[in-house]
Amino acid sequence: MLIGFVIVVKRLADLGERAAIRQINSILTKEKKHHGIGDDCAAIDMGNTYWLVTTDMMFQRTHIPKQMSPYQMGWFLVAMNISDIAAKGGTPLGVVCSFGLPKSTKESFLKALTKGADACAVKYGTTIVGGDTKETVEITLCGTTFGFVKKSEFMARTGAQLGDIVAVTGTLGKAGAGYYALNRKKQEKKLTNALLRPLPRLTEGRLLAKQQSVTSSMDLSDGLSASLYQLQEVNTVGFEIKKTALPLDPRLLHIFSNKNEADLYDVALHFGGDYELLVTIQKNRFENTRKTLQKKDTALTAIGRVTRKKDIVLLDKGKRSLLENKGYEHFRKHRF
Amino acid sequence: MLIGFVIVVKRLADLGERAAIRQINSILTKEKKHHGIGDDCAAIDMGNTYWLVTTDMMFQRTHIPKQMSPYQMGWFLVAMNISDIAAKGGTPLGVVCSFGLPKSTKESFLKALTKGADACAVKYGTTIVGGDTKETVEITLCGTTFGFVKKSEFMARTGAQLGDIVAVTGTLGKAGAGYYALNRKKQEKKLTNALLRPLPRLTEGRLLAKQQSVTSSMDLSDGLSASLYQLQEVNTVGFEIKKTALPLDPRLLHIFSNKNEADLYDVALHFGGDYELLVTIQKNRFENTRKTLQKKDTALTAIGRVTRKKDIVLLDKGKRSLLENKGYEHFRKHRF
Repeated sequence: MLIGFVIVVKRLADLGERAAIRQINSILTKEKKHHGIGDDCAAIDMGNTYWLVTTDMMFQRTHIPKQMSPYQMGWFLVAMNISDIAAKGGTPLGVVCSFGLPKSTKESFLKALTKGADACAVKYGTTIVGGDTKETVEITLCGTTFGFVKKSEFMARTGAQLGDIVAVTGTLGKAGAGYYALNRKKQEKKLTNALLRPLPRLTEGRLLAKQQSVTSSMDLSDGLSASLYQLQEVNTVGFEIKKTALPLDPRLLHIFSNKNEADLYDVALHFGGDYELLVTIQKNRFENTRKTLQKKDTALTAIGRVTRKKDIVLLDKGKRSLLENKGYEHFRKHRF
Repeated sequence: MLIGFVIVVKRLADLGERAAIRQINSILTKEKKHHGIGDDCAAIDMGNTYWLVTTDMMFQRTHIPKQMSPYQMGWFLVAMNISDIAAKGGTPLGVVCSFGLPKSTKESFLKALTKGADACAVKYGTTIVGGDTKETVEITLCGTTFGFVKKSEFMARTGAQLGDIVAVTGTLGKAGAGYYALNRKKQEKKLTNALLRPLPRLTEGRLLAKQQSVTSSMDLSDGLSASLYQLQEVNTVGFEIKKTALPLDPRLLHIFSNKNEADLYDVALHFGGDYELLVTIQKNRFENTRKTLQKKDTALTAIGRVTRKKDIVLLDKGKRSLLENKGYEHFRKHRF
């Protein structure tokens, strides 16, 4: 007699990305002196400095808006990497690119792609030092950037302390504004550049690092809510965010001029694609740090505070509610 | 009246990979003190040392044999990288992986993939220090490894001098033997491991580097003929290769026991996938260098010499012919 049994085969779709990352983390051999599994960059202990390394992949179908030009794709690939270096307070030293391209790719596409990647690297004081091309079915771009930071200036994701100020650089919702502009067939660069050709906060990251007042840091590419949840997961604290304190981007106000307020904050909180920095800063050091960035024409805006309770609360006109975690998946990557 | 005109749109398929790489190279901004555009690794000038960085992508359809297990895929991804570090005489410091996986991927696949990548990193004295996962249509794996080497021990692709000995580590044709074994449904690990779970020559790379007798170096992953042509392209010399001197792998002899001799040499010369090193060595230092590797149980075999004339000649029983350049495309990558 045969006894029937069912083998449960879990697939990534059921498992969920978080569980997948936990699986990977539980398997990997760890080198204790290094830092950074689960952080924006891997950080390799080199004595007084960390070497920083970060990698990103872009796939045509899932990550590249159809309006994105090849120049913008190249720029975006490098910008994503630079933003990760910025979030750690680092200085980039070089970029390596892998271009997986279909046989039917036009020569002009390859040229523009390369020019975009090169221009972004040069804009941020570095160069593309190597890479390779491979034939593939779907456009697949992989960028790796490496750099360094003094250990004393390294801004990890972990370290947020009760009472710290939660702050963001620049404004929120500009990539979202660009996305909605494109959906409405508005192609003006001033509206779409933030989405398609973002400017990571490298100078600001270095300024913040030198202040040594930042207790935790990451970039905002996944959106504010998703980023806050990622930060909270690796820290032993919670956050209280004041909705009206969020620095909405003027372009968002322009795009949604006829809509109600809720949409604006929804985009600013959840859309992602804003290559700003999210940091926690020692309360008594916040004002000086803010002024330092202001001198370089970058706003640093307090949007809340670090709390003891391990949840994320949104304060809206005295009303408290749990912040939803709904960063847009198409912008999100899942680190290990 | 309209005058008709034809716009010639070149595509990568017409352009050819070499021309594509030249296009990329002509566009990229160069940082003079760095080394390595077109080399196995990018080499960043850090004073007394170079930081080495190398990156590789693997795609399911074009690079992953269907018999390759997920564990072997992970291993292979890291091994390709380690081999590039080895070819420069370097020591790896860390590996970053990006896994692009379909939603339908089984949890067990992810675990095995991670274990394979981890095992290869640990085998070569390093660890996986970070990475990310992304959802994609086709399995796409990107590995980046970084390391370092003293400038005085760096083995560049350029530097071959007239009269130098051309040599290879280990044996040739073992990956090819594995390929033909699989085609004949022979799954024995001793036959297929060289193809599916290669062992790059990291220790040997370091030993060669310390000898400081190597004048140019690259890995053999693309196959001997393709590699010789790549080496020749960046040097101002040619090569004369003695066919009967090629160290054929015993597994190749085993697989082709009933075939004629020509097939054996064809595989050894062109197949690729052998993660050995191809080097040129100062003639008067060759014997000492060979003995140094022999003490560590690795053969270093002289297969020819560096010539003045910029071509690659194959010597076979006194007959001279130009060596064909026909490395198997499925193993080849195209660097910039």
